[in-house]
Amino acid sequence: MTTPNPLFRERDLELVLYDVLHADQLAELPVFADHDRGSFDMVIDAARRFARTTLWPTYKAMDEAPPRLVDGGILVHPRLKALFPELAALGLVVAARPPEVGGQHLPRIVHTFATAYLMAGNLSAYAYVGLAAGAAHLLETFATPELRATYMAPIYEGRWLGTMALTEPQAGSSLADVTTRATPMADGSYRIAGAKIFISGGDHDLTENIVHMVLARIDGAPPGTKGVSLFCVPKRRVVDGGLVDNDVAVAGMIHKIGWRGLPSLALAFGDHGDCHGWLVGAPHRGLAAMFQMMNEARIMVGMNGVATASVAYHEALAYAHDRTQGRPAEAKDPSAPPVPIIEHADVRRMLLRQKAIVDGGLCLIGRTAIYADLAEHALDPAARMRAQRLLDLLTPVAKSFPAERGFEANALALQVHGGYGYTSEYVVEALMRDQKLNSLHEGTTGIQGLDLLGRKAMADGGAGLVALREEITASAELARTAGIEDRLIAPVLAALSSVEALTAVLAGRGLAGDVAGMLLHSTDYLELFGILVIAWQHLAIAAAARTARAATAEDAQLYAGKVISAEYWIATELPRLATLVELCRSGEDSYRRIRPDQL
Amino acid sequence: MTTPNPLFRERDLELVLYDVLHADQLAELPVFADHDRGSFDMVIDAARRFARTTLWPTYKAMDEAPPRLVDGGILVHPRLKALFPELAALGLVVAARPPEVGGQHLPRIVHTFATAYLMAGNLSAYAYVGLAAGAAHLLETFATPELRATYMAPIYEGRWLGTMALTEPQAGSSLADVTTRATPMADGSYRIAGAKIFISGGDHDLTENIVHMVLARIDGAPPGTKGVSLFCVPKRRVVDGGLVDNDVAVAGMIHKIGWRGLPSLALAFGDHGDCHGWLVGAPHRGLAAMFQMMNEARIMVGMNGVATASVAYHEALAYAHDRTQGRPAEAKDPSAPPVPIIEHADVRRMLLRQKAIVDGGLCLIGRTAIYADLAEHALDPAARMRAQRLLDLLTPVAKSFPAERGFEANALALQVHGGYGYTSEYVVEALMRDQKLNSLHEGTTGIQGLDLLGRKAMADGGAGLVALREEITASAELARTAGIEDRLIAPVLAALSSVEALTAVLAGRGLAGDVAGMLLHSTDYLELFGILVIAWQHLAIAAAARTARAATAEDAQLYAGKVISAEYWIATELPRLATLVELCRSGEDSYRRIRPDQL
Repeated sequence: MTTPNPLFRERDLELVLYDVLHADQLAELPVFADHDRGSFDMVIDAARRFARTTLWPTYKAMDEAPPRLVDGGILVHPRLKALFPELAALGLVVAARPPEVGGQHLPRIVHTFATAYLMAGNLSAYAYVGLAAGAAHLLETFATPELRATYMAPIYEGRWLGTMALTEPQAGSSLADVTTRATPMADGSYRIAGAKIFISGGDHDLTENIVHMVLARIDGAPPGTKGVSLFCVPKRRVVDGGLVDNDVAVAGMIHKIGWRGLPSLALAFGDHGDCHGWLVGAPHRGLAAMFQMMNEARIMVGMNGVATASVAYHEALAYAHDRTQGRPAEAKDPSAPPVPIIEHADVRRMLLRQKAIVDGGLCLIGRTAIYADLAEHALDPAARMRAQRLLDLLTPVAKSFPAERGFEANALALQVHGGYGYTSEYVVEALMRDQKLNSLHEGTTGIQGLDLLGRKAMADGGAGLVALREEITASAELARTAGIEDRLIAPVLAALSSVEALTAVLAGRGLAGDVAGMLLHSTDYLELFGILVIAWQHLAIAAAARTARAATAEDAQLYAGKVISAEYWIATELPRLATLVELCRSGEDSYRRIRPDQL
Repeated sequence: MTTPNPLFRERDLELVLYDVLHADQLAELPVFADHDRGSFDMVIDAARRFARTTLWPTYKAMDEAPPRLVDGGILVHPRLKALFPELAALGLVVAARPPEVGGQHLPRIVHTFATAYLMAGNLSAYAYVGLAAGAAHLLETFATPELRATYMAPIYEGRWLGTMALTEPQAGSSLADVTTRATPMADGSYRIAGAKIFISGGDHDLTENIVHMVLARIDGAPPGTKGVSLFCVPKRRVVDGGLVDNDVAVAGMIHKIGWRGLPSLALAFGDHGDCHGWLVGAPHRGLAAMFQMMNEARIMVGMNGVATASVAYHEALAYAHDRTQGRPAEAKDPSAPPVPIIEHADVRRMLLRQKAIVDGGLCLIGRTAIYADLAEHALDPAARMRAQRLLDLLTPVAKSFPAERGFEANALALQVHGGYGYTSEYVVEALMRDQKLNSLHEGTTGIQGLDLLGRKAMADGGAGLVALREEITASAELARTAGIEDRLIAPVLAALSSVEALTAVLAGRGLAGDVAGMLLHSTDYLELFGILVIAWQHLAIAAAARTARAATAEDAQLYAGKVISAEYWIATELPRLATLVELCRSGEDSYRRIRPDQL
């Protein structure tokens, strides 16, 4: 058997999209009135086909031969160069945007699931487009009409690309310490000067121009985050309808261990004093603007994580079907033929664990994307606010669960391959390398934990958690109606209650003035929150699988597998949640107490 | 601060060696009478110096430029070639062997801790010597005097190297399916024919000869493991005092993702019908003999894992001291200078976790090595048998705990480095790649779980567990005397009782005929067993740290840190053990029930 890797199986994705999340109901909202399930499927089908037939076959070649820095410019892999026009022609950079800027108002969830295939097929190739979409969306929201016409439109047309240029060598994750300078000029533009690092897609030969969204500090701005502004700084600026060099230079290429089709660069802005930038949004409000992009990016990182785990899962599953080795523990006859390793319990454990992570992660990302759709487009302002709260609350989980557990899943996919998995002849090791970035970029896992516990769970007096309870309770009701046994439902509801109670305890610590104590176990809190949220997804998937009509015998088995995945996750992970709740509550403070010289 | 990486800190190692494990008392045994602490330290010092000054500085270069296959032979990295004579001159290949074969009867624990430095400095470079030692030891134990003189002596003299050639492409971990043939000749030798794969150090230009220990099946042998024999098959055979080619060819080089200084090869034995091999041990008893090497190798793999995690830990620790970024959560002034990231609670959490894994793992390996010493050399036969049982019981844990948790530690070391850790400019990513092999070679983690639960825990009616209880109880008594609080001691003893009770329940399932049910959660059993065993090590280390006299203020802090590590492990991991015990006991059977077509 050498089935090509499906990246995601159609039915897995459709079950989540329509049977669990009822994405087709979004078409009832006026903004999505031009759509229906048929148009959703068409977009996803196109992405799926392109990902399977064009992107995935180029993945390994691009991993093996990263972009090269030649004469101060980056040359991408020839195969990427060849396929890029087709990738751009899919139109996904603008599909989710309104018709005014050339889009079709595709719901975020449909857009996200379409891009899931591109990410699964070739993360690096997709990333060029994903980054550009984020940059253009920032311009769309915050820039002047002139700037939009000049620098946003070509991105949405698929002719240019874009980046986000936040990080500086000395500051890292601490954007308060950005030092790139912006000096105002008489014509309203600024001269930009400074160094940025880890700029993904910061240079390449795919398009004639690249639009960087740059964080910088206007001369005389206050220190800290309240003095950081956002600028549009193109690689080449438009002058009299032509393009002239804008003094943005490649200062160095970083040798990343994954996403190797996408260059990560150090960029020097304004080394020759001639780097023009234009303010995007209000002065000193750059971080607030940037967070529009960042919040979108975090969902996309979550999808990256799920996609990377999904491809690897399907590699491992196919390998486990194909590879024969050994006999069952209870077998007696040494001359009996060896069995496919999928027959070994521990191999099935490793596969089921990967599957549970992938299925749960996909559903979580889908749900988050629907909240994003509703937060923007629901008719009722209260519904919009409620969706926004859920989106805010779930974003750090959607970002970090696939990164952390996805990495575990990727390591298991390698493990299923045995010694072969440890070689670059198989692709699972490359996928594991790709996955590791997701716990680092767009806010490390530690930062997501602080965000979840310190901000999101506490916001508006815990309104997000109240909405979460309503959502989980509703899913539990649906599950009960669908005939899911109470032994699966009750533990999820109990876990929810314990997370609520824990949150109240921790909030109390913060209110009593012990902020550091409240946040001490924020990474553990993030982890236990993730376990709960994924258990909820499994409950919802199991309910849908129990009630969905199986069109084929294959589907019937796939649905049965969903219920078993839910059983697995609830039985193995919720007890772990309970121990983490206790740990957070106990205030165990070993790493608070240990001194640097005691480490 | 750019302190060179210590690989292991002297005091960390000495505390375990002398204050916890009292290795100096081994010198009271007649076999070790020529030794004392002074001679132990001399051996370890020499290895440490060489590892720090010569091996570690070559590590990155060897990772970046793996051996090359040229004209059918393997050329190693020039820097390895240059340093190899000095590595061989350390004499560690034979140091632990008796004087009759050129050794000094160095205790296994001292040998293991000396090699720990070599592994930490450069895993690949050390592996050539480690593999050779295993091969020579097999010859020493099982081969005829002629064979020993011809093929063992040159290895022990440091002139030749050796390998273990077990795995075949179609068989993988299933040694029952070995098909390499051995045809008896009139002169008592055999003609060997077959293909082996994943042969580490299977060819190179370091020494003029390589001695392969090969599993093969004598013509007409019974199927399965009971028909597998062990052979000595040199690359070049000795004829009239000279060396002639022995028809062992490199069939291909495997591109491993780590240990990149050490080639992994496919070897073809006897393609031209002229590959001579000599039986080692009795016919059809090859597997039993091979397990002498394998059991030693598993302890060494554990040490690899600890060493690889230790180097990475020290990289992360130094980085966290050096790198400034952000401010504490409670800081208000954005113009205050950023702090070293070690001040951030979550960074300290990541460091403490690595430290707890490394310290606990080192102590476990040391303890296992002492059991090996006592199993062989204790005067009282009952003491020997008891030590052997403990050695047997702990070997799968010593092999897999450092592999699995070490990988977690290595990923955390990368995470501490932020985006920089994701680049090949820093060494942590390479160490993480190295670590991944340890869950695969010399028996995967799944196989270790089956070995622990299916064989070791059940052997002799659970005699190993009885001895383990005595050992842990004794450590608990020492801890109590040393003033360690009962809140640390009691949970470890409770965990021990729960593991015993669980084992009895699982044994009952097996005895009732449900072997598959008994073994269903063997990987979880292995994990929970590891948590217990490491908690025991931390208790013992904390007790020693509490009572040891600190020669310097630095040592005093280091000792205080040991107690906090113990608190951390016991508080965070023992609750997890409890959930795993419950999971194993419950017989949760999701992955037993799920069908391949439901995955």
